Amino acid sequence: MSAVLDLADALIVFTPSGKRGRFPLGTPVLQAARSLGVDIDSVCGGRGLCGRCQVVVSEGEFAKHGVTSSSESLTPISEPEQRFARRMKLEPGRRLSCSTKLLGDVVIDVPQSSQVHRQVVRKAAEAREIDLNPLVRLYYVEVREPDMHEPSGDLRRLEEALEREWQLTGLSCELQVLQTLQPVLRKGEWKVTVAVHDEKTILGVWPGLKDAVYGLAVDVGSTTIAAHLCEILTGEVVASAGLMNPQIRFGEDLMSRVSYSMMNPGGAAQMTIAVREALNELAIEVAREANIAVEDLLEITLVGNPIMHHLILDIDPVELGGAPFALSTDMAVNLPARELGLKLHPNARAYVLPCIAGHVGADAAAVMLAERPDLADKLTLIVDVGTNAEIILGNKDRLVACSSPTGPAFEGAQISCGQRAAPGAIERVRIDPVTLEPRFRVIGCELWSDEPGFAEATKKTGVTGVCGSGIIEIIAEMYLSGVINQDGVIDGDLSARSSRIVPNGRTFAYVIADNGTVDLKITQNDVRAIQLGKAALYAGIKLLMERLGVDHVERIRLAGAFGSHIDVKYAVVLGMIPDCDLEFVDSAGNAAGTGARIALLDATSRATVENLVRIVEKVETAIEPRFQEHFVDAMAIPHKTASYPHLSKVVTLPASKPSASQNETRGRRPRRA
Amino acid sequence: MSAVLDLADALIVFTPSGKRGRFPLGTPVLQAARSLGVDIDSVCGGRGLCGRCQVVVSEGEFAKHGVTSSSESLTPISEPEQRFARRMKLEPGRRLSCSTKLLGDVVIDVPQSSQVHRQVVRKAAEAREIDLNPLVRLYYVEVREPDMHEPSGDLRRLEEALEREWQLTGLSCELQVLQTLQPVLRKGEWKVTVAVHDEKTILGVWPGLKDAVYGLAVDVGSTTIAAHLCEILTGEVVASAGLMNPQIRFGEDLMSRVSYSMMNPGGAAQMTIAVREALNELAIEVAREANIAVEDLLEITLVGNPIMHHLILDIDPVELGGAPFALSTDMAVNLPARELGLKLHPNARAYVLPCIAGHVGADAAAVMLAERPDLADKLTLIVDVGTNAEIILGNKDRLVACSSPTGPAFEGAQISCGQRAAPGAIERVRIDPVTLEPRFRVIGCELWSDEPGFAEATKKTGVTGVCGSGIIEIIAEMYLSGVINQDGVIDGDLSARSSRIVPNGRTFAYVIADNGTVDLKITQNDVRAIQLGKAALYAGIKLLMERLGVDHVERIRLAGAFGSHIDVKYAVVLGMIPDCDLEFVDSAGNAAGTGARIALLDATSRATVENLVRIVEKVETAIEPRFQEHFVDAMAIPHKTASYPHLSKVVTLPASKPSASQNETRGRRPRRA
Repeated sequence: MSAVLDLADALIVFTPSGKRGRFPLGTPVLQAARSLGVDIDSVCGGRGLCGRCQVVVSEGEFAKHGVTSSSESLTPISEPEQRFARRMKLEPGRRLSCSTKLLGDVVIDVPQSSQVHRQVVRKAAEAREIDLNPLVRLYYVEVREPDMHEPSGDLRRLEEALEREWQLTGLSCELQVLQTLQPVLRKGEWKVTVAVHDEKTILGVWPGLKDAVYGLAVDVGSTTIAAHLCEILTGEVVASAGLMNPQIRFGEDLMSRVSYSMMNPGGAAQMTIAVREALNELAIEVAREANIAVEDLLEITLVGNPIMHHLILDIDPVELGGAPFALSTDMAVNLPARELGLKLHPNARAYVLPCIAGHVGADAAAVMLAERPDLADKLTLIVDVGTNAEIILGNKDRLVACSSPTGPAFEGAQISCGQRAAPGAIERVRIDPVTLEPRFRVIGCELWSDEPGFAEATKKTGVTGVCGSGIIEIIAEMYLSGVINQDGVIDGDLSARSSRIVPNGRTFAYVIADNGTVDLKITQNDVRAIQLGKAALYAGIKLLMERLGVDHVERIRLAGAFGSHIDVKYAVVLGMIPDCDLEFVDSAGNAAGTGARIALLDATSRATVENLVRIVEKVETAIEPRFQEHFVDAMAIPHKTASYPHLSKVVTLPASKPSASQNETRGRRPRRA
Repeated sequence: MSAVLDLADALIVFTPSGKRGRFPLGTPVLQAARSLGVDIDSVCGGRGLCGRCQVVVSEGEFAKHGVTSSSESLTPISEPEQRFARRMKLEPGRRLSCSTKLLGDVVIDVPQSSQVHRQVVRKAAEAREIDLNPLVRLYYVEVREPDMHEPSGDLRRLEEALEREWQLTGLSCELQVLQTLQPVLRKGEWKVTVAVHDEKTILGVWPGLKDAVYGLAVDVGSTTIAAHLCEILTGEVVASAGLMNPQIRFGEDLMSRVSYSMMNPGGAAQMTIAVREALNELAIEVAREANIAVEDLLEITLVGNPIMHHLILDIDPVELGGAPFALSTDMAVNLPARELGLKLHPNARAYVLPCIAGHVGADAAAVMLAERPDLADKLTLIVDVGTNAEIILGNKDRLVACSSPTGPAFEGAQISCGQRAAPGAIERVRIDPVTLEPRFRVIGCELWSDEPGFAEATKKTGVTGVCGSGIIEIIAEMYLSGVINQDGVIDGDLSARSSRIVPNGRTFAYVIADNGTVDLKITQNDVRAIQLGKAALYAGIKLLMERLGVDHVERIRLAGAFGSHIDVKYAVVLGMIPDCDLEFVDSAGNAAGTGARIALLDATSRATVENLVRIVEKVETAIEPRFQEHFVDAMAIPHKTASYPHLSKVVTLPASKPSASQNETRGRRPRRA
């Protein structure tokens, strides 16, 4: 009897999972996969419409699996597959597993792209892949028509279909869905696609089959706002865009915006309106680029520093303007996007990542989510440099974080010839230690300034200024070539030796380029601004190292636009960051934006980040008495006392000779910007 | 050892629960109650502020409890009690159980008003008491101040306090609360009262102690909207008001409003705006009457027929205008009131009771909740007469429901001398079977028209028309006195005998009063209108009786304004409702409004009504072939074939003599209005 049954069964082996089972001949491959718990996606519920359940037959003998597999072990290309192939394109060798039935033993490969919980490949610079666990999913259903003899509401019959076909129960439904449900059901002739959030709430209903929904991951910086539009079910980044934060008109830096709200009744609300308008503009822009409607955006995740976080939520940031810097909330905020005035799908959901502390925002939380220092063995330092630097230090044993007021110098502001990173901006610099002559490269041109054809190649853009990463290199090279000493003082005596050193008021300046109309020069004030910024950054790092009782770090990750463009060696030369084996110092890319994208695509990551912000120990630089001390010591280049064993292997540091002028900075304390 | 412990303990017995236990001397009475599970309310958490935990000492010997109790078994009046008594008034003999400690054995009585889950006494006419299980509760907490050394958001510290003091965990928080939290905490000096919905969501935060919140129970009728404002924590009705449904300008009856929405693009939305504006007006009116702010309204429950239900929710009722009469939803709708455009507290919650079927609305569901026929032993008929009658029949074994298009005649419309129930309207009538002379009473006067002083007493109001209940009595009395026969035909031959019978076109009329300027008369058309309405009602009832396979009912409840004023005997004489022992026929009062109030005050009732609408079997009169047959039979007065054993004991029914004229109504079918 059992032998007879076996004859009528076929062995199916799924790769790469290795899951296997015997099923009666005629069983659809998708059904076999489901009963074995093999992860195959489907929006249409096995109707051959959505094409998400594609599989590939592995042909040949598989001794390991004890099976000989061939495409003849399956039913021939079916009618739904032909229809789908005509409509959408079906790669050769691919089958729709819902419309393909077992005729014999077979090995079936499930490609990544057909898995629900697949991984999204991140850029090379980035640490790990994103697991895809979308919170919003689509379900195609056929709904029973109304029947007078057994009256029941359209919503109930929709929910019955979702339970019957997708085992979804206990759903709630947004009012707007209820308001449009009846015409949509009738337009779709009782076949509709339903978007369900978190297996709990019906967010949208569309007539017929809809197979893509989108989400927006946004990093709201004080200066710029950047957004990535992703296809939620595949994780693909479909479009990206950025724009200036229009709040700049209320104040360049964060503190001046808090002041604005304190001095002007309704000021905070004005800034809220401004940032929300920008978010809506950005949504329209990326949607246009992706050729979709903003109404197709069903989710948005938002990260930002605490002030931006509060202003997005329309919470007056006044408490963040003074001690004890109390956040309104340090928890994630999960709510309908419309409550933030965002014009996406009417029921789109917003998830605002949690802040860490009054000065350490949701952007830093997102960086942690992208970098996961809590999984690292090596003692890892993560630095996200902006007008404030967010600093995270630790590993799987313990994590500490703080924020340090570096000021806007690293962003090219407050530097006499500073400018945004744009074509024509100097980004790479070398200074000959003998002649003191510089050579440089500008954005938009692959040639160095001393190579033939440079003038021709940069004719269009010109050489317009120095961007953030350029300023680091110039000051570091000025130090390495002896133009400035450890205290940052430009050596006026050198003006006798080089026309690059010129008087500038009561101090001197270094002329890096003459762009025809004006000299681009680095003044003593420029050097001071960078010293103040880097000292604040280093002091913050040092506080965290003290908190952990360590005297060196094993790995450094530089996050943000700044971190992406900088030559890390120069950051160490300048003493922005502590000495470290340069092999283990690299860019983390736009980690805050990546964190926002992870929170968008991987539902489980939200619990992770909510936990991370809880376990990380917060250090408040403003009340740490040793911050000032570390700050003063860090004014020297690279540092008054720290040693640089790793760096010394790579560059030759000038001999240390601190002068009395160092005292001029004593007692100054950077203002939180 | 145990004896020593006993000496230091005191026995406390709580009445009426009888719960008892021994506690160490010095234990606060409230704390003893809590550990015994005795239900005593408290908003302030035992701080002697809110006064909700009042108890009374029972003095004397209680052999049954084995205890001698006296006020000396408790600590003397405490400082908090004195403060409370100065501020709020504390009745003599009452103690605040939080501020009173055990000194010896004692019997403590917990008055109803100090219980959380107390019952609210309903009016005599109404069936049962309302259990108080408010969904929104208030919690007074003291919140830890922010600390830079251990940064945490204000919301987290609020939630910690709610967990520490009230064991509330896993709360979510409305955005608006987050937006106001920081100033409120500081204004209240870290002492605030929190409103929590369903032990899940923080709806509001106020500085200091707040000890009352309010809710609104609203019955949205096609013609009038009525609201009761209740104190949610006590169940007390604080104010009531009603106003005309402004949708009347789009159509008198429901079907003309559906037509309006079909004929006019945006017509449904216009009606939605109109009804929501009326709800906001009503909220302002009752709040003013109760001397509170509309922002103190934290909940609203809404009932209405299916069209009103859909229009309140901004759902186009077009599908309800034709077969198969599909509801958008037959489930309860639970959402923030602001999503309905209601301007109450910004986070007020709305609960819209579920509809039963396309023609049987949330008002009928509310009637079921108020009447609970599912608990009855007796086979109970519930009738709510409006322009449509909602009919429910059954008992604990089985329930059926339908709606029947009675038309507006019972509301005094379509009756030549009909008017609203207002001073001057005839409401009671007797006709002398010999002289055919009428006597009557009008609203606003206790005298009958043939009593001395009637003319004087009604001089101010006059006799202006006949109201809904008056019309029932007149037609029934006309039948009992032989003015009309079983077919409803006014006997013109009687004009020879009485000047009350006068020609009126090709038929006759009965003059009931001459108010000086015009004769108030009942025309043949008036009789027909009532016959059509009552036949539709009876036919609906008959359908339900057939569905249950019964030929009589044991109990009749008449709901709504109509049911409250009618003399039930005449409703049976007229054949509106089937024969029944008159002892078991009575008014259910405004049962729909009561149902809305129950849903407001008793959270558990919501599951009850949601279940009731599921288990009740729906009968669609529009597709029941026997409806027409029952309708024609019911045109006769009281009925063509039914027998009236109970009624015959109370009145003498004229001998049956049907005439050919009955045929004139055959083939007419009432239009759903």
